[in-house]
Amino acid sequence: MKYLCFNGHERKNDELYCNICNEPFEILYDKKYNDNIIKNFDYITNFISLGEVETPVVKENNNLYFKLDYFSPTFSYKDRGSKNLISYLCSDNKTKSVNEDSSGNAGASIAAYGKKAGFSVNIFTPENANESKLRQIKAYGANIIRIKGSRDDVQKAAEHYNGFYASHILNPEFRDGIRTLSYEIFKQFNKMPDHIFIPVSAGTLMSGLYSGLKHLYDNNEIDKIPEIVAVQPENISPLCSQINNYNYNPDNNLTSIADALVSKRPILMTKMLKIIRENGRCISVSEDEIIRSREELALKGIYTEYSSATVFAAYSKFNFTGKSLLILTGNGLKN
Amino acid sequence: MKYLCFNGHERKNDELYCNICNEPFEILYDKKYNDNIIKNFDYITNFISLGEVETPVVKENNNLYFKLDYFSPTFSYKDRGSKNLISYLCSDNKTKSVNEDSSGNAGASIAAYGKKAGFSVNIFTPENANESKLRQIKAYGANIIRIKGSRDDVQKAAEHYNGFYASHILNPEFRDGIRTLSYEIFKQFNKMPDHIFIPVSAGTLMSGLYSGLKHLYDNNEIDKIPEIVAVQPENISPLCSQINNYNYNPDNNLTSIADALVSKRPILMTKMLKIIRENGRCISVSEDEIIRSREELALKGIYTEYSSATVFAAYSKFNFTGKSLLILTGNGLKN
Repeated sequence: MKYLCFNGHERKNDELYCNICNEPFEILYDKKYNDNIIKNFDYITNFISLGEVETPVVKENNNLYFKLDYFSPTFSYKDRGSKNLISYLCSDNKTKSVNEDSSGNAGASIAAYGKKAGFSVNIFTPENANESKLRQIKAYGANIIRIKGSRDDVQKAAEHYNGFYASHILNPEFRDGIRTLSYEIFKQFNKMPDHIFIPVSAGTLMSGLYSGLKHLYDNNEIDKIPEIVAVQPENISPLCSQINNYNYNPDNNLTSIADALVSKRPILMTKMLKIIRENGRCISVSEDEIIRSREELALKGIYTEYSSATVFAAYSKFNFTGKSLLILTGNGLKN
Repeated sequence: MKYLCFNGHERKNDELYCNICNEPFEILYDKKYNDNIIKNFDYITNFISLGEVETPVVKENNNLYFKLDYFSPTFSYKDRGSKNLISYLCSDNKTKSVNEDSSGNAGASIAAYGKKAGFSVNIFTPENANESKLRQIKAYGANIIRIKGSRDDVQKAAEHYNGFYASHILNPEFRDGIRTLSYEIFKQFNKMPDHIFIPVSAGTLMSGLYSGLKHLYDNNEIDKIPEIVAVQPENISPLCSQINNYNYNPDNNLTSIADALVSKRPILMTKMLKIIRENGRCISVSEDEIIRSREELALKGIYTEYSSATVFAAYSKFNFTGKSLLILTGNGLKN
């Protein structure tokens, strides 16, 4: 197992950015794939658990499946990463205090696992963060620090605060925890889906999912890596605009009803571009399409937050051949 | 398998109340217990599914366990009953339109499963129903009809409306679906808990849980039925007051922050008294105790609605010897 930056340079200590090229690091897990999912994380000796399950897959028809990844202790997929990062921090006895920046879901997740581990937890949020998510973060016993300015300003505030910066974006261990999602998909499908749809903001879900798929591929467990379909709101579409060649101004003042998808200048951009150029595509969706898709999912009995409904909006815009799996990342009560 | 009223009279047709004694009916499932849980519901030929899972158990210590029964499609335990009732109605092709009265969780659940089955769904709610739950009910495509008056008035309005009255309280098939909870507990524990704590309002959870435990006991799968600890808010404690002999006025104007526990004159009282007198006890908890317990659970990383936190309040008031399992029925984002 190695820590490499997105340009392949090795990590020296616990630095978050590469000293050579300034890119973040990721874990290259190169041991044999183990059917017992947890055993693929053998750099952690003791896992903090809040009751995670294998999240269910609902079949809509032979070509369309939903993975309800909000069947999770804090009700979003972020728990996969938080469990891994916080457990890692405990195993190594690295800290007793963590700071994190989040528009809501990652904050709630880090707060719950962090407090369970006995840490003090500070969550930095934008001023306009969703109230339901803030209540949840506070309930877990974290301190909330609201920051004026952009999402990037919030990140900088957390990064430079006293204590361990438990970023869900920068810490390789957080993203690495999302490999569990790929392994679950592999176990739940006899034949892997052709397309896996994910909402994209900072890129944590994409990079974690890809790591797991790549690990399965390198172990000859799957014969190709499914296409990753990255979905963003048109209003905040830094990745889609680069992939699909349209103008996007990160300094526009646009927001989105998809309040978890607000990264205007994602620091994992290098990695995301590489993944999508090799294995995927990008689709952006309008606010109206997001709202309508959330309604349509609910009519099927699937109640997600707006940010999650983006993937159904993207799926509905085009004809996809083969089997599509849509990852639904957040519970509808969060909106 | 038989339909018997709480006094043991057989049901003639599909009547909701016994013609002889006016008590509701329950299913006596007398076939052999099957390890494949779903096979214990062989009166249903085709199940509607929205992605149910075996809900997780979190161990707090050797004597205290929580079952997170809100890891469920509509985020409350009510899905166990709705799945069963709506699937039953589909199997028998009995109706295309259902009415239900609910303070929120049952309404959301019947709405989701009912719409998935292609029914039209009318949910009758009290005027002061929780807004987050109303939004959820509406999202699933149900009509909401708000009724002035008491919870009992809401029930009467739904009962006398045109169409099938899919009551989560009166329909034996709804309550019978909750047997799955008992079977899951049996599978998840090597040795059954000594005490099972549940919040009590109308009595659906208690009667369903008891049916499952009794079935396991009658099949010699367990050697005794765990004690059922029924918990109510002091403000609305019709069962506790009868069991523990204190004065309770159902016409008081008291409400509770535990907004799912609002049955002031539960129509399953006969059954509940029988169960508790044979196998259980009742504990009532104050509003302050409920609020504090919800906070304490959240600090453990378990985010429940107030109604669910009542069981932790009750557990915290006394010393229980042996193993206690607390059923946490609703997701904390619902409040």
